[in-house]
Amino acid sequence: MNNKIEFDLILKNGMVINVFTEEIIKTDIGIKNGIIIRTGNLDGKNIINCEGRYLSPGLIDAHLHIESSMIAPKQFADFISLRGTTTIIADPHEIVNVSGENGLNYMLEETEDCSCNVFFNLPSCVPATKFENNGCNFSSEKMKKFIHNKRILGLGEVMDYVSVITNEEEMMKKINLFSNKIIDGHAPRITGDDLQSYRLNGIITDHECETYQEALEKLRMGFYILIREGTAAHNLKELLKPILEDKIPLEQLCFCTDDKHIDDIDKNDHIIHNVRMAIQLGLNPIKSIKLASINTARLYNLKKLGAVSVGYQADILVLDNLEELNIQFVLHKGKVIIENNIPKKNKDIINSINIKNIDDYDIKLKLSETETTVIKLVENQLTTKKELSKVILKNNIFIPDNIHQKVIVIERHNKTGNIGIGIIKNFGLEKGAIASSVSHDSHNIIIVGTNDDDIIMALKEIKLMGGGYAVSHNKKIICKQQLELSGLMTDTDRRTLSKNLNNMIDICHNMGVKKCFDPFITLSFLALPVIPEIRITDTGLFDVTNFKFI
Amino acid sequence: MNNKIEFDLILKNGMVINVFTEEIIKTDIGIKNGIIIRTGNLDGKNIINCEGRYLSPGLIDAHLHIESSMIAPKQFADFISLRGTTTIIADPHEIVNVSGENGLNYMLEETEDCSCNVFFNLPSCVPATKFENNGCNFSSEKMKKFIHNKRILGLGEVMDYVSVITNEEEMMKKINLFSNKIIDGHAPRITGDDLQSYRLNGIITDHECETYQEALEKLRMGFYILIREGTAAHNLKELLKPILEDKIPLEQLCFCTDDKHIDDIDKNDHIIHNVRMAIQLGLNPIKSIKLASINTARLYNLKKLGAVSVGYQADILVLDNLEELNIQFVLHKGKVIIENNIPKKNKDIINSINIKNIDDYDIKLKLSETETTVIKLVENQLTTKKELSKVILKNNIFIPDNIHQKVIVIERHNKTGNIGIGIIKNFGLEKGAIASSVSHDSHNIIIVGTNDDDIIMALKEIKLMGGGYAVSHNKKIICKQQLELSGLMTDTDRRTLSKNLNNMIDICHNMGVKKCFDPFITLSFLALPVIPEIRITDTGLFDVTNFKFI
Repeated sequence: MNNKIEFDLILKNGMVINVFTEEIIKTDIGIKNGIIIRTGNLDGKNIINCEGRYLSPGLIDAHLHIESSMIAPKQFADFISLRGTTTIIADPHEIVNVSGENGLNYMLEETEDCSCNVFFNLPSCVPATKFENNGCNFSSEKMKKFIHNKRILGLGEVMDYVSVITNEEEMMKKINLFSNKIIDGHAPRITGDDLQSYRLNGIITDHECETYQEALEKLRMGFYILIREGTAAHNLKELLKPILEDKIPLEQLCFCTDDKHIDDIDKNDHIIHNVRMAIQLGLNPIKSIKLASINTARLYNLKKLGAVSVGYQADILVLDNLEELNIQFVLHKGKVIIENNIPKKNKDIINSINIKNIDDYDIKLKLSETETTVIKLVENQLTTKKELSKVILKNNIFIPDNIHQKVIVIERHNKTGNIGIGIIKNFGLEKGAIASSVSHDSHNIIIVGTNDDDIIMALKEIKLMGGGYAVSHNKKIICKQQLELSGLMTDTDRRTLSKNLNNMIDICHNMGVKKCFDPFITLSFLALPVIPEIRITDTGLFDVTNFKFI
Repeated sequence: MNNKIEFDLILKNGMVINVFTEEIIKTDIGIKNGIIIRTGNLDGKNIINCEGRYLSPGLIDAHLHIESSMIAPKQFADFISLRGTTTIIADPHEIVNVSGENGLNYMLEETEDCSCNVFFNLPSCVPATKFENNGCNFSSEKMKKFIHNKRILGLGEVMDYVSVITNEEEMMKKINLFSNKIIDGHAPRITGDDLQSYRLNGIITDHECETYQEALEKLRMGFYILIREGTAAHNLKELLKPILEDKIPLEQLCFCTDDKHIDDIDKNDHIIHNVRMAIQLGLNPIKSIKLASINTARLYNLKKLGAVSVGYQADILVLDNLEELNIQFVLHKGKVIIENNIPKKNKDIINSINIKNIDDYDIKLKLSETETTVIKLVENQLTTKKELSKVILKNNIFIPDNIHQKVIVIERHNKTGNIGIGIIKNFGLEKGAIASSVSHDSHNIIIVGTNDDDIIMALKEIKLMGGGYAVSHNKKIICKQQLELSGLMTDTDRRTLSKNLNNMIDICHNMGVKKCFDPFITLSFLALPVIPEIRITDTGLFDVTNFKFI
């Protein structure tokens, strides 16, 4: 009955990866209006010869924060789609912490029509805890107007697990709003009774597993594990190797990046990096691809995504082989993606640095004893250790040395003048100061420094730029990056950004920061009071384990 | 934080089947308010010792028609739940064909609170084709008021595939109503371009596969195959054996019964029969159970069903082993199911036989030639063959013989007086007549007979009973079963019903009906114009292959 279809495009003679039966089937793909409408032996005017090529479904990143890339969302989408990620499920947690509903609307509008399918889960924990001073309280009431948006798939990672397991009222309202959708989790090291209570409330994913034991406990409870390879967090090998050895079913596994810097994406690609790693671990390439395609589509109920098959959106990677998965080109909605110059738009989200006069801030740290609680960084991890350490004092004032530096957090949303001052250990900085307006989740200004002059210098620069990164030494700014969008992202060309960031990272390493740390990512997590064991906020040191200020 | 929970019930020391990791894990199960809220080492007042027992999730039948059991829905639910089926996804296609919205409301209300979770998909093809004379046109407009009911999961099996692939307007309206839910298919022998067009419209399941080739084509296109073991249709061995041999992933497979008679359930149990057969075919018991639990729950988005795990409804089978799966007892919502006496209720759905005076019907079949088109039954199948056959004529009037009997269909909803008369071959009836008010999908009255007197006799009895089965011989009714609910079901005790039905089947076989046919089921499908190759309706013989009357 459909003998004469005029296709918009035919991919001819490709070897199609069938994620349903896990076969490779040589067939033509007929596309019309962005949808695959026929397979088989097809003819038409517009043909791309795919002889000898493999056709994979466009890949899906199950969980990420666009803001972590530091480039504007539309630009980000174009950038990753060229690298094979044609769908992302983003949690706009960072920008909503800074700019509230304006931030969310900005993200939705900017990604409405780009070369990637961009879905969102509404950030569940803004502010991250009740101890936070951030830019917005994103309440269940505010969420209501967004839940019928077809691009909102569910509730974003529920970090505040205490509120969940104690059935705190506002948290329950949020969870109930999404009872028929997906509720993403964030449960690092939560186990036993606490984990059971957490699961009992309908939370169904977790992307924070660091060990196989942790993943296995969660899998047994029906959690879907989003296996993460980000810039700072590397969990794939640790989790997937024993899963394969023990022949655990792969149905509840997906891949995600969570937080991946633009220069890291440039070097190592995006979610396809997870797929390649899985193949290197010995997982069959088709099964590996499933973890970044149909598995994720099924979990998030994306009916037209995740497969190269009739009725599915024509998001297709054309690959040259099934070992390295080199991408020849990528189709999104049936069109070959090419790199665009992105026009800039006016934003509601600039001018987000709202602090007191810098001279008003007193950044001296008075201590009565040389042995004091410090934040000890753990190499290659986001977690920290709470430690008692001997530091140098002069007239009861803390003096940084090569082991211990000063870290300060300055509230930047409501001009409260709040400032938290603490000590970090094991970071390595030997001179100058490093400042950033990116610091999860409240995104107050965080600065690590070896002396007060450079700290103040860097802080001034952050204010001047309306947000960004700044590195100072000998009272001079030696490098900087403006992040004018909510103090998190920029509309600059991504190559310029990437190049500058790499340069800044090198400078920081030359100033002594240990090579195992990306200085800015490490800084950005130092203020997040939901990752163990100890953090610093604008109101002081916070003991995550006991969930209280020290 | 949850040290002192008072459980309603604890299942102690059972070996729990974990459908997530495919492990057996010995643990206690703590239940409160019908939900599993804890596992581990638990204590409480109300304990059932499950030492040495296996705990399986309550089983799910992915697709069935309650009406096919012929007992009232609440009673049916109680009956099957004792046999391990704690959830069904029913298509109330039969009763809606007869009693419209009254029928649907009756089904919803009666199953609101019973020992089984009863979900419905709205019947998509009422009437089954535009050539039908049935009791209701269940339009997309009528569906709208039901779609927000939480027990309506989607659109029921879309049998009218021609309307789908030609994008007929009303069919598209129905499909669009359910674009975010599940749309069940019914695509026997549909293949190639037609199947692609069918899938393109979002239809995602099929339970009509008879061959592996058919199933494989559908699996490759992303269909979920609901593997059926019903009273008449037996597809499991044919499909599952090669699927296992070829190591096709099992993720898109579920089990269903479709149509299963009450006496068949009594003898062979319900959906657990499919699971047992799969085990006999060599499939690992846990994987077998998944096809009747978590797989189906995932497909139909039943978040709290399909697993024995925290957060899941406490629907649990306690089994003595993993080979025969003998059921010790069944929990539904945390309570041990016991057999109930079901109170009868008043119904809107009795008095459904609305026909002319019986003397007004002329049931003679005039033919001009001895060679004529007949309906040839195929042994062990629902399909029929269109055949030219030599029959006996006397004054141009057809005379039944041992090979050919008369079959008539009488419209029973709107008193139109419509009567279709034809000939069937290979049924075996040697004397008397068999009549039924159950005949898919319009459920007009269908009668097969060897002589006109007995046909009229049986018809009279059907009218008198307000629907049911009747068998006549020598102008006497020799057995009968009243089906007063829409002419499809009865409120009689199921044991009495089952015994009587078995007796009636024996009588029919003694009257010559071939042993390979259940006489009433065979009759009930003879009028369904969507199963190949030839059918009879109240307006005449219908060629299914060419989709027109002969």
